Amino acid sequence: MTDIHASTGLSAPRLPSLYLDDLSVGDQFTSGEHAMDEAQIKSFAAQFDPQPFHLDDAAARATLFGGLAASGWHTAAVTMRLQVSSGLPIAGGIVGAGGELSWPRPTRASDVLHVVSEVVQIAPSRSKPDRGMVTVRSETRNQHGDVLQIATVRIVVPRKSGDSGTEAA
Amino acid sequence: MTDIHASTGLSAPRLPSLYLDDLSVGDQFTSGEHAMDEAQIKSFAAQFDPQPFHLDDAAARATLFGGLAASGWHTAAVTMRLQVSSGLPIAGGIVGAGGELSWPRPTRASDVLHVVSEVVQIAPSRSKPDRGMVTVRSETRNQHGDVLQIATVRIVVPRKSGDSGTEAA
Repeated sequence: MTDIHASTGLSAPRLPSLYLDDLSVGDQFTSGEHAMDEAQIKSFAAQFDPQPFHLDDAAARATLFGGLAASGWHTAAVTMRLQVSSGLPIAGGIVGAGGELSWPRPTRASDVLHVVSEVVQIAPSRSKPDRGMVTVRSETRNQHGDVLQIATVRIVVPRKSGDSGTEAA
Repeated sequence: MTDIHASTGLSAPRLPSLYLDDLSVGDQFTSGEHAMDEAQIKSFAAQFDPQPFHLDDAAARATLFGGLAASGWHTAAVTMRLQVSSGLPIAGGIVGAGGELSWPRPTRASDVLHVVSEVVQIAPSRSKPDRGMVTVRSETRNQHGDVLQIATVRIVVPRKSGDSGTEAA
């Protein structure tokens, strides 16, 4: 088990890209941070999830959210941004096939997000020797350590030897 | 089983809001349409998923996508927009607790999306008599009927009688 960022904490630099062969179950990665705010929450909601509790704090107080909350899809999108920028240095990029999501509590305008990911399964492809499927469980947390999203996503990862799949001409 | 839009097709009007008691397993809903394009795909990617296959068609040709593809999270966000605007008229709004996602094929700039949803499970809450959990399976399809995303999401839905939960002061 390796905590790639044990020494660097949250200010994670861009790391060398990892191939399937470089990963082990239990490997952990910690992303950099992203500060949410009301403008981002309302802008995303206006475009993709225009519901009162994502658009207006006063209206949100009268709902089960009890105040302005980001769309869960906004939390998911910011999580992806953190993974791509600093959280999950996969060779050829992060190509997700699907996965599971849950939002244990809402993301608020005052939250500063980071993502802690762990490799939970590695399955080399039987039919395609150049790649495999890696399952990563990621918790999106705020500055208090509250877990706002849990995502378990299957990612296509190239093998070091041979055609990388995502970089072939 | 009811197909709410059997007569209106894809140009789905905004419908009256439905409570838990109005829903039955097998009920189907079809959203309106949303046309993707390169500008939207690149704009979303620049903000939330800045990887070459979502940003640049030439770079994308050299990857397993074989050409510009929308971020899966963009497909998910557009799906939510279609559900909120026309696809899933739930009383108090669409409040998701989590679910499963898969992307069987990439969303392209030329795709016109719509969402076909079906109620697959209804579970009144035992501890909170004012609400329940409804599981909805949604297929996001393009104009050719290709399935681009399958989402099975658990939604908090208020009951008709008593406190609606999402509208309580």
